[in-house]
Amino acid sequence: MSGNGIGLLFRLTTFGESHGPAIGGVVEGCPAGLPLTESDLQHDLDRRKPGQSRFTTGRREADQVRILSGVFEGVTTGTPIGLLIDNTDQRSRDYAGIQDLFRPGHADYVYWQKYGVRDYRGGGRASARETAVRVAGGAIARKLLATVGVRIRGALIAMGEERIDRSRWAWDEVERNPFFTPDAGAVPRFTALLDRVRAAGDSVGALLEVVASGVGVGWGEPVFDRLDADLAKSLMSINAVKGVEIGSGLEMAQGYGSHMADEMVPGAHGGVEFVSNHAGGILGGLSTGQEIIARLALKPTSSIRIPRRTVDIHGQAREVVTEGRHDPCVGIRAVPVAEAMMALTLADHWLRDRSRAAERKRL
Amino acid sequence: MSGNGIGLLFRLTTFGESHGPAIGGVVEGCPAGLPLTESDLQHDLDRRKPGQSRFTTGRREADQVRILSGVFEGVTTGTPIGLLIDNTDQRSRDYAGIQDLFRPGHADYVYWQKYGVRDYRGGGRASARETAVRVAGGAIARKLLATVGVRIRGALIAMGEERIDRSRWAWDEVERNPFFTPDAGAVPRFTALLDRVRAAGDSVGALLEVVASGVGVGWGEPVFDRLDADLAKSLMSINAVKGVEIGSGLEMAQGYGSHMADEMVPGAHGGVEFVSNHAGGILGGLSTGQEIIARLALKPTSSIRIPRRTVDIHGQAREVVTEGRHDPCVGIRAVPVAEAMMALTLADHWLRDRSRAAERKRL
Amino acid sequence: MSGNGIGLLFRLTTFGESHGPAIGGVVEGCPAGLPLTESDLQHDLDRRKPGQSRFTTGRREADQVRILSGVFEGVTTGTPIGLLIDNTDQRSRDYAGIQDLFRPGHADYVYWQKYGVRDYRGGGRASARETAVRVAGGAIARKLLATVGVRIRGALIAMGEERIDRSRWAWDEVERNPFFTPDAGAVPRFTALLDRVRAAGDSVGALLEVVASGVGVGWGEPVFDRLDADLAKSLMSINAVKGVEIGSGLEMAQGYGSHMADEMVPGAHGGVEFVSNHAGGILGGLSTGQEIIARLALKPTSSIRIPRRTVDIHGQAREVVTEGRHDPCVGIRAVPVAEAMMALTLADHWLRDRSRAAERKRL
Amino acid sequence: MSGNGIGLLFRLTTFGESHGPAIGGVVEGCPAGLPLTESDLQHDLDRRKPGQSRFTTGRREADQVRILSGVFEGVTTGTPIGLLIDNTDQRSRDYAGIQDLFRPGHADYVYWQKYGVRDYRGGGRASARETAVRVAGGAIARKLLATVGVRIRGALIAMGEERIDRSRWAWDEVERNPFFTPDAGAVPRFTALLDRVRAAGDSVGALLEVVASGVGVGWGEPVFDRLDADLAKSLMSINAVKGVEIGSGLEMAQGYGSHMADEMVPGAHGGVEFVSNHAGGILGGLSTGQEIIARLALKPTSSIRIPRRTVDIHGQAREVVTEGRHDPCVGIRAVPVAEAMMALTLADHWLRDRSRAAERKRL
Repeated sequence: MSGNGIGLLFRLTTFGESHGPAIGGVVEGCPAGLPLTESDLQHDLDRRKPGQSRFTTGRREADQVRILSGVFEGVTTGTPIGLLIDNTDQRSRDYAGIQDLFRPGHADYVYWQKYGVRDYRGGGRASARETAVRVAGGAIARKLLATVGVRIRGALIAMGEERIDRSRWAWDEVERNPFFTPDAGAVPRFTALLDRVRAAGDSVGALLEVVASGVGVGWGEPVFDRLDADLAKSLMSINAVKGVEIGSGLEMAQGYGSHMADEMVPGAHGGVEFVSNHAGGILGGLSTGQEIIARLALKPTSSIRIPRRTVDIHGQAREVVTEGRHDPCVGIRAVPVAEAMMALTLADHWLRDRSRAAERKRL
Repeated sequence: MSGNGIGLLFRLTTFGESHGPAIGGVVEGCPAGLPLTESDLQHDLDRRKPGQSRFTTGRREADQVRILSGVFEGVTTGTPIGLLIDNTDQRSRDYAGIQDLFRPGHADYVYWQKYGVRDYRGGGRASARETAVRVAGGAIARKLLATVGVRIRGALIAMGEERIDRSRWAWDEVERNPFFTPDAGAVPRFTALLDRVRAAGDSVGALLEVVASGVGVGWGEPVFDRLDADLAKSLMSINAVKGVEIGSGLEMAQGYGSHMADEMVPGAHGGVEFVSNHAGGILGGLSTGQEIIARLALKPTSSIRIPRRTVDIHGQAREVVTEGRHDPCVGIRAVPVAEAMMALTLADHWLRDRSRAAERKRL
Repeated sequence: MSGNGIGLLFRLTTFGESHGPAIGGVVEGCPAGLPLTESDLQHDLDRRKPGQSRFTTGRREADQVRILSGVFEGVTTGTPIGLLIDNTDQRSRDYAGIQDLFRPGHADYVYWQKYGVRDYRGGGRASARETAVRVAGGAIARKLLATVGVRIRGALIAMGEERIDRSRWAWDEVERNPFFTPDAGAVPRFTALLDRVRAAGDSVGALLEVVASGVGVGWGEPVFDRLDADLAKSLMSINAVKGVEIGSGLEMAQGYGSHMADEMVPGAHGGVEFVSNHAGGILGGLSTGQEIIARLALKPTSSIRIPRRTVDIHGQAREVVTEGRHDPCVGIRAVPVAEAMMALTLADHWLRDRSRAAERKRL
Repeated sequence: MSGNGIGLLFRLTTFGESHGPAIGGVVEGCPAGLPLTESDLQHDLDRRKPGQSRFTTGRREADQVRILSGVFEGVTTGTPIGLLIDNTDQRSRDYAGIQDLFRPGHADYVYWQKYGVRDYRGGGRASARETAVRVAGGAIARKLLATVGVRIRGALIAMGEERIDRSRWAWDEVERNPFFTPDAGAVPRFTALLDRVRAAGDSVGALLEVVASGVGVGWGEPVFDRLDADLAKSLMSINAVKGVEIGSGLEMAQGYGSHMADEMVPGAHGGVEFVSNHAGGILGGLSTGQEIIARLALKPTSSIRIPRRTVDIHGQAREVVTEGRHDPCVGIRAVPVAEAMMALTLADHWLRDRSRAAERKRL
């Protein structure tokens, strides 16, 4: 397996399984001179950490990250940043009953077919646990981007059939409820839905939105490494994501050019101002300077307590009930993960843009 | 600009602007021994070619592709395949009026900001003309995949508010109408809609579906180079695409685990059979052996005859009416392009999988 | 075959065989705004062109390069630059006699084993003809580097047992003799040697030196993408090269630390001055600001008129005499190729360094 | 800094500084099913470990490697293998005196210029300590290659002016003396030389040879990712290496085609046999099936006790004497490192070749 790294100039490579001794990764490309401590990373890790409310898995991981290299006397040195998070609460016995069968909706069957061996404890490499390292790496990208005024925020905007009221969007609210949702009015509805789902031993999907403000004009690369193409890849690479939209997204398919092409008017200081943002801040694969807006749909957790039909490694029909400790809605804790992936992609394209932007002005 | 290539082992790199002398590309990684002629490529190019119905741009390009290398005595040699398509119908004068202003919905403004210079004739590098090379390269990938039984087909399933009736889906119908739609019953409705749109000088968006059958189990790479993540990137890299879904896609966000996780039952020959395909043929980033199903949303063509507000390169307010020759619905001709991108991504992952699959069996 | 591209940000991808219709390539990553014409490239191509003296192959190629994209109104636009050179003097009949046998020292046997098919005309992809595209791409890199004061020059310093007298080194002399040698006094000796070699139907090896001046401090990347490691790869990738040295090179193995570690003294403007340059301008993989000095050894041309033992594709013993038209010393025309490869590598690392250098100053 | 990874399909990424808490890395691409334990890696690490004789640094590192992922129940799972080695004997106080000056021959000055900050303790990232992770990763590559019969061995063949007698080459001898030299007769001479050098507070360079046997025909990629080009990069990326040769190497420059092109005769089983191996097992960038032979020259250790002129970070002239604990000849312990780099490069190209070899036979 290659494919465990993402980014060209700002690059994160990860390793680790759900129930091995540790997970970790390497961040390459962070410029020297950025003040950085472990607590900068810990904040985002704590937001993603399991066991924070009754709506997430009961697994209790400290998720304490250690920086092993690349930082000296409190600032980055330009060398790769080694990250390590010990696995501390591995109840592998939970998985003893399922080691020889393929859980529906999980990667068990395909890993078995591809590799012929499989670390069946908790999903192994395919576990959402791997995303903790993304969050740690993303926190570095986020801190780097903050130095140029970029801010990245995510929110849960729908769960099952319940949606937020966008007119009540308040970013501050996101950190105040267990759903990362910006609409306080939706909290009781999400709560009721999730309590029903948990009681039924079922799970539910979710829709997230991630927004980056302060992005300069022209980040991205035609033709294949477009900013939106790279965002689509980085967001779709998150476990359970099955759809990604930029700006007005799928709604664009139903729209007319007379409404969807964002008009421009003269802005302050001789600049340009867009009168709308259907494009989600990206045209021709390059950032427009508006907010970058992406949405991602997560499927319901595949591990449920309702009996499901499946097959074991011997080809026999079996029934599976996944006990273990699982989030009834993986979409909730995916909010900091989605922010991290957007941060990683933007940091990479910022560096890529810089290599030529300075040059352009000089030539 | 780097970022003009896609794929790790099977790789397409393209070059060329809408109104330069030619567009072209290089295909690397095609195994030796594949019978290949220019007419293999021409078939798909002709499907994408402009000027085939009143619903596409009046520009008349021969789109005649030449193979400059990598094929000897009718078969591929394993060396890179150079592709060249001359631009023959460049009416650059059409663009004289817009050389100093930024067309809404186009990449004019962001290219200007990023590069400081801009080939304003027909969108330059950002023109959909670039996709002709993708179709040529994709045709090679398609022919390669066919040798292992993979078949890739695309279709238009919605345009504006009009949708097909999926119960009437007939693949054969796709090649019989100018919309690449599989529902003959939808043709009159699409026709009426598009005639209205054209009469109004407007444009409309579209939703496409691309399906690959015959894909083996286990293609793809955890964690970042997942098959779905790479498909999301390759499809989102097509001009005007603003959203990508895999399988049940965004609908997953509203669903429950008890319905969405595809159950398995014993299949023929000791194998596994899935009873549904909400996952779109991909679990944990690896192919399941089912059909790979992706959908992509294209925004309405940004070039319309309805006056729109914009700004010129001097920061002055201007009004723009795009005359030129444009598709009222770019989504139509994007069908062969989407097929090509899926073929390129699958060919790459097929080769990636082979490098280790054979090995696994031996160890 | 992948592996036809080199460079991360400034990248050249090539295609084409010796006796196909054309060879060509794509240059990605050239910043926008660089004045560029075909004649900028032609100068270096003419230096590499065959048929310029009795010491090079009699094949007469116009080697006329066309720029197909990426340049608009005389300046680069930041988009990929498509390059095309037609093959005009292909006497494929020269190769009819050798199509079923493996020429010693050539890639015939290994291509046959790897690919199972082979374009046997003139070495196909393995022909030195492929290097013409490197020279064209390198000319773009060279022009870009010139804007920051970098100058790259190469020279032939030994041929067979004949060596130059380094005390007589004059760069101006290089362009005045058919050997690209900087020592006028060596010209008669090289002439005599090569006349003997030609008369005998034999060939001879050569040693080249390439020097870059004006390189800034700190270009390169620890740990694997060191500037010297990337130079070693790019120079070793030239046909017939079998050894690469940086600075004092192999002599270092015989030296003592007390002589080999270049001392430093205070320089002008508070800077640092090195008192020697055994390191060849690179320490720890990063440029020191001194001249970058590399040497490369080329093996004698494998195509000779002296009968040699070999085997044919049927496994039968055969004798081969290579008639065709061949350079008795491939090292001569490799001088502009070596310059091009160094230019490509330096341009790439210059862009890589810029992406973070600007940032470092700001943080 | 990106550039901390090497390899396309089999890839090692490293992190860590000489005096940080730990060094480590990630190995991607190892096929599933390979039996692997930490002791497989420890064997090579112990060969490289400091403090094993009076001829290497007195630093005493346990160099105990831990495998953190990618291995389950004793076999590889196909997922990335996380490696960690704690730094245990960091006497950072040794470096207190040199924190503000640039040691000649070291990367101090260029890191300072590039990054503006510098972990001055023991060379930081530029320390040879980083190579321990290469050895650990290389041990995995070596074990993988062994399953197809490939064996990689290295030896020291010259030190200063002393050279081995090649006629006395005995591979078994390599592991019996502290120099990794295959000529028992040279041991007393190397001993005497090194004792002299140590007594003088000086250091000396070395020449190594690395040989791979059992490599199949056709590994490698034309044109840029040639096997020899990738070997040149991977070997030149080792600290202190200043020259790399393949086969007859630099001697080729003095040779004639009639001697240097390896003739072929019919071999056993209808195959081909080469009568010599000047090419070092590589033609046209592809392996010939013969032994792959590379040599590398290492400069003398830059840290010596003889006073040297230098400059400090304030631009003032200074004199430096490096006390610390250093190898008088870094070339000795570089033998297992060179083997590791060759193993990594061959494993990568083996996987690359497999992705297409199987296919070629089928088409």
